Amino acid sequence: MPTATLLISCPDKKGITAAITDFVYRNNGNIEHADQHIDKEFNTFFMRLEWSLKGFFIPTKSIAKRFSPLAKKFGMSWNFFLTQKKPNVAIFTSHALHCLHDLLLKSTQNYFNGNIALVISNHKKAKDLVRSFGVPFYYLPKQSLNKEGTERKELTLLKRHAIELIILARYSQIFTKNFVDEFPNKIINIHHSFLPAFKGSDPYRQAYAHGVKIIGATSHYVTEELDAGPIIEQDIVRINHRSSLQDLKKEGQELERIVLSRAVRWHLERKILTYNNKTVVFE
Amino acid sequence: MPTATLLISCPDKKGITAAITDFVYRNNGNIEHADQHIDKEFNTFFMRLEWSLKGFFIPTKSIAKRFSPLAKKFGMSWNFFLTQKKPNVAIFTSHALHCLHDLLLKSTQNYFNGNIALVISNHKKAKDLVRSFGVPFYYLPKQSLNKEGTERKELTLLKRHAIELIILARYSQIFTKNFVDEFPNKIINIHHSFLPAFKGSDPYRQAYAHGVKIIGATSHYVTEELDAGPIIEQDIVRINHRSSLQDLKKEGQELERIVLSRAVRWHLERKILTYNNKTVVFE
Amino acid sequence: MPTATLLISCPDKKGITAAITDFVYRNNGNIEHADQHIDKEFNTFFMRLEWSLKGFFIPTKSIAKRFSPLAKKFGMSWNFFLTQKKPNVAIFTSHALHCLHDLLLKSTQNYFNGNIALVISNHKKAKDLVRSFGVPFYYLPKQSLNKEGTERKELTLLKRHAIELIILARYSQIFTKNFVDEFPNKIINIHHSFLPAFKGSDPYRQAYAHGVKIIGATSHYVTEELDAGPIIEQDIVRINHRSSLQDLKKEGQELERIVLSRAVRWHLERKILTYNNKTVVFE
Amino acid sequence: MPTATLLISCPDKKGITAAITDFVYRNNGNIEHADQHIDKEFNTFFMRLEWSLKGFFIPTKSIAKRFSPLAKKFGMSWNFFLTQKKPNVAIFTSHALHCLHDLLLKSTQNYFNGNIALVISNHKKAKDLVRSFGVPFYYLPKQSLNKEGTERKELTLLKRHAIELIILARYSQIFTKNFVDEFPNKIINIHHSFLPAFKGSDPYRQAYAHGVKIIGATSHYVTEELDAGPIIEQDIVRINHRSSLQDLKKEGQELERIVLSRAVRWHLERKILTYNNKTVVFE
Repeated sequence: MPTATLLISCPDKKGITAAITDFVYRNNGNIEHADQHIDKEFNTFFMRLEWSLKGFFIPTKSIAKRFSPLAKKFGMSWNFFLTQKKPNVAIFTSHALHCLHDLLLKSTQNYFNGNIALVISNHKKAKDLVRSFGVPFYYLPKQSLNKEGTERKELTLLKRHAIELIILARYSQIFTKNFVDEFPNKIINIHHSFLPAFKGSDPYRQAYAHGVKIIGATSHYVTEELDAGPIIEQDIVRINHRSSLQDLKKEGQELERIVLSRAVRWHLERKILTYNNKTVVFE
Repeated sequence: MPTATLLISCPDKKGITAAITDFVYRNNGNIEHADQHIDKEFNTFFMRLEWSLKGFFIPTKSIAKRFSPLAKKFGMSWNFFLTQKKPNVAIFTSHALHCLHDLLLKSTQNYFNGNIALVISNHKKAKDLVRSFGVPFYYLPKQSLNKEGTERKELTLLKRHAIELIILARYSQIFTKNFVDEFPNKIINIHHSFLPAFKGSDPYRQAYAHGVKIIGATSHYVTEELDAGPIIEQDIVRINHRSSLQDLKKEGQELERIVLSRAVRWHLERKILTYNNKTVVFE
Repeated sequence: MPTATLLISCPDKKGITAAITDFVYRNNGNIEHADQHIDKEFNTFFMRLEWSLKGFFIPTKSIAKRFSPLAKKFGMSWNFFLTQKKPNVAIFTSHALHCLHDLLLKSTQNYFNGNIALVISNHKKAKDLVRSFGVPFYYLPKQSLNKEGTERKELTLLKRHAIELIILARYSQIFTKNFVDEFPNKIINIHHSFLPAFKGSDPYRQAYAHGVKIIGATSHYVTEELDAGPIIEQDIVRINHRSSLQDLKKEGQELERIVLSRAVRWHLERKILTYNNKTVVFE
Repeated sequence: MPTATLLISCPDKKGITAAITDFVYRNNGNIEHADQHIDKEFNTFFMRLEWSLKGFFIPTKSIAKRFSPLAKKFGMSWNFFLTQKKPNVAIFTSHALHCLHDLLLKSTQNYFNGNIALVISNHKKAKDLVRSFGVPFYYLPKQSLNKEGTERKELTLLKRHAIELIILARYSQIFTKNFVDEFPNKIINIHHSFLPAFKGSDPYRQAYAHGVKIIGATSHYVTEELDAGPIIEQDIVRINHRSSLQDLKKEGQELERIVLSRAVRWHLERKILTYNNKTVVFE
């Protein structure tokens, strides 16, 4: 059954929820999920509303336009999505392929609501794997000298495939500010530590050296600052003094896959809002 | 700032949320928290709505009466609460006092929104502890022969103290159906296992004998059937082959305290609805 | 660097550890890992000893024979393993392929110390996947009428491939006692619940119906009694009232993969001993 | 039944375990627990050995002396403990009393093997609570001007009470290097974050500002560098966008109590060795 979803944030004010839910009700929509949150410190209202389009009076194409005056009245930032539409997704990866492999597998199992339209890598290692899933693979090596040229090629590919979400599945390269600005809150990265601890390279080695008793993984939106964008999800696993650096990597790979794929799933189910470098996740 | 809270469940239907939130808006209320859930299998709508009473047009005493016609229209089961009112709570305990002690401590720290008005026990062991916190203590031994007589005394005490919630903090006695019927979804028990595994007596010994690698604790509302009421919260801790039965008990005591006190907190924050022997917890 | 591993259990007695470690020392072995455990209730001693074979005085082929008198003296049950030898492993699966896929992937990443020598299934669904990893696939349908005949074929295949461990990766069939007796503590199953809760079929549906707040997965050795063999590993994930049965399955699949692959890894690293329907896991 | 425990670390070498366990065996000791660990990177051997003194040939008073030549031969750092001896413990606290309260409670329940001999605080708030448990309380305010003078008083008290372990139960003051040097690996602190993230003051506020999805607590030995000593234990709890800063503190208090009391228990059970700013915890 097709549904529509609104993601809304605006300054908090009396009557917002009443106005929005009345819009759905007056047009004969049946609400299936409604979540809201108010951040009092920032006086900000957040809402996710999903309703059935069965018998909805407004034609699908016109819903956004018809909602627009209400949005304007309350000063909303908002996005409108049709649930039955599967967005196109691109994966960037390097030579650690466990996250890529997991996403390809989950894609065939409808774990998340999106199509993996292409995979781009600065290594050739993933080529056979990706093509065995029938997904186009592009090898685009990237050195500091050719970075901007390569990113132009990448942007061309992403636009050609109408990509709405970029997943960095252990991609070892850092994008330029220009590239990131093209996809605000649309690039999800997995960092193999419990951020903000152990930013940067080789976080398992850092964790091992610190003698921590728990390791973590963090999925987050990519912003200009390295490993510092809004955190979507984190999870952990216990280790102990017997755990070698190799054990940390083995256990960590499981975490990375889980924490990244949850973030991808929630993003594509339109459950995430961002503000103030944080996320609201209506899971 | 005083707020009011509604807990609602009713058959799902178009326009419920719009009608409820409009009621608050028309009367100048500012929504602080709104959570809803729909169980499609049972076509049931659940809502928790909390709004500020600052400037609310309807006098506090009349809110319930004024909301009543709307409730009737949608066939709601509902409860109305004033947040600033601290309900009276009774604790029943036996000889394992860690949960009792924890609740007494948390009561002094405003961890939950309630007053511990009295403690009843079938052992004398807790007397000094309870009184050191300035709380009345009643020793009511209970044998199968005098069970109904003792329960009558307990009911008298509970009514005299206007008790709204009963907490069984490792209470080793089983109430009669009559007693339970007096407090529907108002008796919270802690069971020291991951229910439905290891119901009944000595669950740690059962867990130990089964060689499980994780132990759990479960807080639930008490119903007529032993250890089978709606589950409110569960949590776990890892054990291993080195863990003795004594270790299980030590680790488990931590769990019990946490899992019980979370349930108490959520109940008193009016965040729990029950249906079909399950809970909706709007935590 | 090659190492040897001994797994030992015997009645506890003074001098066991001294005798075993002296055997290694006198023969110029360097201990790399030594773990022991004593179950006082059963007066049983357990040990895992791994030592470097570099410069060891006894030729590899003769170690077991030379250790044998010591073993006899203390009445040991014991097994001797050479770490560099990769045992052959068989996977049985049906139509839920996430665990199979995960094991195939991890096999290529040397996550565990074994070769997946063949996959047997009562469904054809896994065929292409398995062969894409270069692993032989056998389709052996199984009905109650032909069960024994099919098991004979399976046993022939398992012997031909010198299989030392059987992994049931969501295999929907139950083996006969005869089959199980051929592989004592050498068949690992994954059950998608927190055993002993929710034995038997469709545990997620059972969990959903009970309104639990946590779901689990359990890997265990297969014994004659269904879902009741020695537990190797368990893990859990939190759910809540919003989690649909479908969500339980999605989250649970992650758990199953982790909990099964940990058990496989530990078994193949020779870290597991069993007794009294429990495991000692020297992780 | 009295037991003796040895905690040993030394350069790894062939024959260490054989020599140590032979020492126990020759003198008619029955090993109850033996754990060892080898850090290959640092070529260091660690062992914890606990054996029954029933029928042990060497008088208790002479065991250390008689073990000494063996220790010298292998260049061991070692400590010898008698299990039946309950060490004296001091708690330092300030105005957040949940950890203090928990330790006092657990002391009465024999959760850990030690006597709380005194409590020292730079606030008066804990006085009545501490004395209600029959424990001496000392109010020693501390300003930058009088720090060294106060620490001299504290050292006098600690020596008078023969204190072997200091527990900082949310103590808000920082000790001088001189003070710390008097108690190497004998001061356990609880830090209310997942170290090394959020060192220093108000870690919950830091966590809240970063929008993390998990908060943690860390118990560690105190060294000269703030919040950077060897980590003993860590644990975590999930939070979400609905969690206020106040919620983080409530949930975090549970964690702090657990993580601190586990460290205290393990230390007093003589299960912890330190090296290279890390711990080996033979839990």
